[in-house]
Amino acid sequence: MPLVVQKYGGTSVGDAERIATVARRVVETRKAGNDVIVVVSAMGQTTDELIQLATTISSQPGGREMDMLLTAGERISMALLAMAIKDMGVEAASLTGSQAGILTDSSHGEAKITAIRGDRVRQYLDEGLVVIVAGFQGVDPESRDVTTLGRGGSDTTAVALAAVLGADVCEIYTDVDGVFTADPRVVGTARKLDEVSYEDMLELAGAGTGVLMARSVEFARRYGIPLHVRSSFHNGVGTWIKEKAMEETVITGIAQDTSAAKVTVQGVPDQPGIAAGLFGALAAEDVDVDMIVQNVSTEGHTDISFTVAKEHLDKAKSAAEAIMPELGAVGLDVDPEIAKVSLVGAGMRNHPGVAADMFKVLAERDINISMISTSAIRVSCVIDSGRSDEAVRALHDYYLPAEANA
Amino acid sequence: MPLVVQKYGGTSVGDAERIATVARRVVETRKAGNDVIVVVSAMGQTTDELIQLATTISSQPGGREMDMLLTAGERISMALLAMAIKDMGVEAASLTGSQAGILTDSSHGEAKITAIRGDRVRQYLDEGLVVIVAGFQGVDPESRDVTTLGRGGSDTTAVALAAVLGADVCEIYTDVDGVFTADPRVVGTARKLDEVSYEDMLELAGAGTGVLMARSVEFARRYGIPLHVRSSFHNGVGTWIKEKAMEETVITGIAQDTSAAKVTVQGVPDQPGIAAGLFGALAAEDVDVDMIVQNVSTEGHTDISFTVAKEHLDKAKSAAEAIMPELGAVGLDVDPEIAKVSLVGAGMRNHPGVAADMFKVLAERDINISMISTSAIRVSCVIDSGRSDEAVRALHDYYLPAEANA
Repeated sequence: MPLVVQKYGGTSVGDAERIATVARRVVETRKAGNDVIVVVSAMGQTTDELIQLATTISSQPGGREMDMLLTAGERISMALLAMAIKDMGVEAASLTGSQAGILTDSSHGEAKITAIRGDRVRQYLDEGLVVIVAGFQGVDPESRDVTTLGRGGSDTTAVALAAVLGADVCEIYTDVDGVFTADPRVVGTARKLDEVSYEDMLELAGAGTGVLMARSVEFARRYGIPLHVRSSFHNGVGTWIKEKAMEETVITGIAQDTSAAKVTVQGVPDQPGIAAGLFGALAAEDVDVDMIVQNVSTEGHTDISFTVAKEHLDKAKSAAEAIMPELGAVGLDVDPEIAKVSLVGAGMRNHPGVAADMFKVLAERDINISMISTSAIRVSCVIDSGRSDEAVRALHDYYLPAEANA
Repeated sequence: MPLVVQKYGGTSVGDAERIATVARRVVETRKAGNDVIVVVSAMGQTTDELIQLATTISSQPGGREMDMLLTAGERISMALLAMAIKDMGVEAASLTGSQAGILTDSSHGEAKITAIRGDRVRQYLDEGLVVIVAGFQGVDPESRDVTTLGRGGSDTTAVALAAVLGADVCEIYTDVDGVFTADPRVVGTARKLDEVSYEDMLELAGAGTGVLMARSVEFARRYGIPLHVRSSFHNGVGTWIKEKAMEETVITGIAQDTSAAKVTVQGVPDQPGIAAGLFGALAAEDVDVDMIVQNVSTEGHTDISFTVAKEHLDKAKSAAEAIMPELGAVGLDVDPEIAKVSLVGAGMRNHPGVAADMFKVLAERDINISMISTSAIRVSCVIDSGRSDEAVRALHDYYLPAEANA
């Protein structure tokens, strides 16, 4: 019997009525002759509400107890979904991450899955049950403590279960219709992609396309699990993410990300060890650095700019300030008003002019580029956040014009 | 180091501020040189809200998934309490029922504790942690499913942990000051008891005194754990429940219970096997029957009356109706407007006139008694629920007059 893994996010199980809708879809899938594993997130805003409650109680909530707290959220949604499915005459059972054998390391709040003991899930499937698994959570087998997987954790749970249990497809249900060539709220002519390669999807996710986290795409790629990103509100086909998209377009999509801030350390001596000292200090504070640009040296001194997630900005700033004397830097500048705009497409490997065209499109609109980073299949520019939507529209018109779709 | 088990109910952890109050008390107890295990219920109305949610989703919620759902409640309160305690500089860790090794049978919703594997709790205590354990929940080791213990389950968790880990005392924190000679909302002269024997407390609990369930008192008695029922709002001494109260009073207290309903099966043949047939049928439907009275036979026919919890009334009625033809009964009467008023006191063993006095006190006020049941240390009368408060006041005035306390 084919095995389907379905993942439903918090919006899809936001209230009793939506849980019933999800239950109907699960029952249909089961009755169509599939084994079904369902991975669920916590209902709607539950996780945010629990975090809020914790911050009123503790000045430094986090770690073990925060994970214990947050995992209550999926417990509620999965039990309710199991009840709804059983009420429709299909046998179902819910399992916590721990019960489903999802083993992780001990990094509370951002644990990595180290192994999955799939025997209990397999046994339930063999008994004919729909198995509902709590997303976002696991257990550290050393301490036997409950852990959470951090942002996008439920997607990771779904893809990892699909990999270990050899699913035929992992369906990611969401409140959008699939992956688009650009954010349709920004670009009116943006269109849904029928297929995206893992490789392009990884770059799109890394560049700010919010549908999927890079982490779960990477997991799917490694184990060759086809992902189907689709709407939980209707039955239409969404976007398939697979080894190789059928036809390789030059540009697959345009992503933007306004969640980062830029930090510039000014006037550091242009000598070996400076970058190592700075980024070592940032890493020691667990600051994730995305782009790094070092200006050309003027009279033996240079500026180093980097971007970090806005929520890491305070940590980054104090870590950089602390090490400035040691580096011999003369100043520190912070700019939270930035946007990263990225072109993604595996086809650009064979089209060397892509980056130059991108700079030209932006220049024609007088949009200043403050940082550039590239990979083999992506070009990203950091610009002023106020010009971000305009830049994305201009790039979409140039690389993915509406008439090409007609 | 002395070991104290403290149990806090839902009201005591009802919001962030109350959780902080509980945390302060735990920290004080710890700093006074005790090992501390804290057992918590779900916050305020959480459990009722989750049940409500389940009934909107499923026509027949219950069993495994209901237990999975409800156990989210303690998860939240215990994690928040652990955070609050840690925030005050004392190390703490929370454990689910399963993690704390609380093993049960498989009766979802009303599981019985079969064993406690206390090694993880013991290890945490040895490491100097305050250990917070989710009340009301356990795990069935056969199916590895989460279970709940039913009404009063958190008290049972606390007493059972105290027994297995050899605690010096089990403190039950509640929103009243202790155990009273009668409900102080009904009897103005009711007074707090400093000590009650297990035996009297068992009868009081069975007769409707709501502070503690008979089940946890029985557990404490069997393992000789002193219970201290006290207020979570101040530091005053509450009521100690121990093997033997220091002086044995004739009457310890007066209890009332308006949670039951009376069912009368009319005109059954007065012959062997009738009661067995009727109560066998009720047991098969899991109806808990409290009192049973069979009237004297008139011309070979008799009436059988019994009381059941109001929430079991529908089940009881349909079970009785179904078996009526087989029993040859001629009618069925149901009365939900009843109250059971009980005198409790181990001293009444040596005072044979107690029951007769009780009937006289009620008769003087023209309060009709429809059923009577007695044990060695309790006399209970079923009366009209509208007269219940009046009866309790009259009995308290007679047996426990205010001047006796002066």
